Amino acid sequence: MMKTITVLPGDGIGPEVTASAVRVLKSIFSTSNRNVQFIEKKIGGAAIDAYGTPLPQETIDQCHHSDAILLGAVGGPKWNQQSMQLRPEQGLLGIRKAMGLFANLRPVEAFQALVDASPLKQSFVEQVDFVIVRELTGGLYFGRPSERLGPNQDRVVDTLAYSRQEIQRVVEKAFQLALKRRRKITSIDKANVLESSRMWREVVNETAKRYPEVAVTHQLVDSAAMQLITNPSQFDVLVTENMFGDILSDEASVLTGSLGMMPSASLRADKVGLYEPAHGSAPDIAGQGKANPLATILSAALLLRYSLDMDTEAAQIETAVRQILNQGIHTSDLHVANHEDQIVSTSEMTDHVIHAI
Amino acid sequence: MMKTITVLPGDGIGPEVTASAVRVLKSIFSTSNRNVQFIEKKIGGAAIDAYGTPLPQETIDQCHHSDAILLGAVGGPKWNQQSMQLRPEQGLLGIRKAMGLFANLRPVEAFQALVDASPLKQSFVEQVDFVIVRELTGGLYFGRPSERLGPNQDRVVDTLAYSRQEIQRVVEKAFQLALKRRRKITSIDKANVLESSRMWREVVNETAKRYPEVAVTHQLVDSAAMQLITNPSQFDVLVTENMFGDILSDEASVLTGSLGMMPSASLRADKVGLYEPAHGSAPDIAGQGKANPLATILSAALLLRYSLDMDTEAAQIETAVRQILNQGIHTSDLHVANHEDQIVSTSEMTDHVIHAI
Ligand SMILES: CC(C)[C@H](C(=O)O)[C@@H](O)C(=O)O
Ligand SMILES: CC(C)[C@H](C(=O)O)[C@@H](O)C(=O)O
Repeated sequence: MMKTITVLPGDGIGPEVTASAVRVLKSIFSTSNRNVQFIEKKIGGAAIDAYGTPLPQETIDQCHHSDAILLGAVGGPKWNQQSMQLRPEQGLLGIRKAMGLFANLRPVEAFQALVDASPLKQSFVEQVDFVIVRELTGGLYFGRPSERLGPNQDRVVDTLAYSRQEIQRVVEKAFQLALKRRRKITSIDKANVLESSRMWREVVNETAKRYPEVAVTHQLVDSAAMQLITNPSQFDVLVTENMFGDILSDEASVLTGSLGMMPSASLRADKVGLYEPAHGSAPDIAGQGKANPLATILSAALLLRYSLDMDTEAAQIETAVRQILNQGIHTSDLHVANHEDQIVSTSEMTDHVIHAI
Repeated sequence: MMKTITVLPGDGIGPEVTASAVRVLKSIFSTSNRNVQFIEKKIGGAAIDAYGTPLPQETIDQCHHSDAILLGAVGGPKWNQQSMQLRPEQGLLGIRKAMGLFANLRPVEAFQALVDASPLKQSFVEQVDFVIVRELTGGLYFGRPSERLGPNQDRVVDTLAYSRQEIQRVVEKAFQLALKRRRKITSIDKANVLESSRMWREVVNETAKRYPEVAVTHQLVDSAAMQLITNPSQFDVLVTENMFGDILSDEASVLTGSLGMMPSASLRADKVGLYEPAHGSAPDIAGQGKANPLATILSAALLLRYSLDMDTEAAQIETAVRQILNQGIHTSDLHVANHEDQIVSTSEMTDHVIHAI
């Protein structure tokens, strides 16, 4: 049966890094004899330029008919002055919501070859291996009202809203994931201040009863922001609401030494998912062949694992990436001054990965 | 004219560390011939035990008749099971709100003697010297509604609410502070998603026009969570709303190697302020003479500076603390295994500070 992957290159370095990941996927599909078609659509600034909207209906429709979506990055100075509804980010928020992709998974793993590039001392990062599960379609990002109030429009509100069911489904995902890992969940909230956090904590505790084999702890978000740096190896699966997850997952990315290494998967209850690097569109280096494609290539590995049940091939990509880094082959973002590593371009790095697989 | 300092020891190690800071202050007032009275009141768990409420009216009244308030810490396992309104934290949130202390200042500075204790590599932390200005009486912490909704109570909302004036006054504080420092402000928001952040950014930009000598940049909160670790020396004054400030200021505390070193000041438009260490009540080591009193002693220095116009004496305390650390005199929380430092108790550390002044 033919599978469909929709590719949304987006802006900046998005086209370069998705092209790399597509090449890696095609080489895997050809050796494993899988019938997969790739269809490209516009999102973000590129879609604003072509259609006057960051998320054309055509893009949404195509995504609805896909088994998986591979996204590059959106945004750039060109569209910064636009009104809110015409900003590239709205394409990203819109597609997550339209597809109901409520669980964003961000694996954070130390790459032995890159510990020198981390701002942290080696002893703090070498054992790091956890996944952040961020709720992605609720909370402050989508709650209404989100508007100015009062006769002079001099008051403003945003709304952090959740239904119990929205919390349940993402917490359930986290427990399922923990079963396949070290069976430890850290749920992060601000239950000493927020009512939504108290409901969150209740749902986690109720769910925990159905998973007696999973050890559950709760951490306050401020404390978690410290512990991510002072004791990151304590974590296995972290689960938290949308805004806390946004902040903590970017913070956690510093552990690995480069945002250029961080993949992400946005999932729902079935197998359909959207996969994208955690980094942005880096307009300053776009089109120069300097972009690090590894975060997108590692996102493609997650695509194989979660959307196409190709665990073996996913692991092959991950092993290949590790191997190449161990050989001292780096893109320029990973370069550590005093190392004799070999700096390669986006497409050379992609060739290395394909070759190593 | 006699000045009044209200001391709110609170729970856990609160009584020990405030006692230390009071001793330091008394020694300073006696040599400088200042007439200051100290009045002690209960807050938090201690107030729940004595009066059935974490913030007795008597405590509020006394604070309203004070020039400054010195607070230890609140909370502990004993009161964890209480209903929300009876939790020790409500005392802390309540006194901030009752006193209108809208600007929380947290200086973050590397202590040369402690860089080894930081999880970060020395080169990343050495130059660190910034202040986080956190809005303290608005946003998600106090917005209404904050409640369960629906026939089955299965929906929940919290509200992030600000008035333009609430934003203005704290932004103004940040600019005033920047004038006395390196004249750089980084305002942190999530303007690509939140309406409240867009108002925040507008107010910062308007205020900036009145301070042409201050350089202003905006950072998204997720990006700031990274940059605090990867490039902390770029910052001079950071200003942000309540919840972002809560998360980022605790995150920033890891730079200095110990929460035991972090003072804070909560201010309003006049000179009245509340001063407290950034650490918690540490019930596990309470009453053992192990607590590090330096965060509270450094908070007392801020009290002298901001509430009593005693800049010279404030600097004396800060210099004394630096000197003692350089001599290798540490409390046990600062101990780095391979160092030949001298571990002292809470009261010995206090003696050292008084002696060094
Ligand atoms: C671009 C922005 C809206 C987005 C978010 O905050 O979700 C990004 O920061 C991310 O984390 O994917
Ligand atoms: C105890 C808690 C409510 C408080 C806060 O979040 O404000 C604390 O974390 C702080 O930062 O002073």
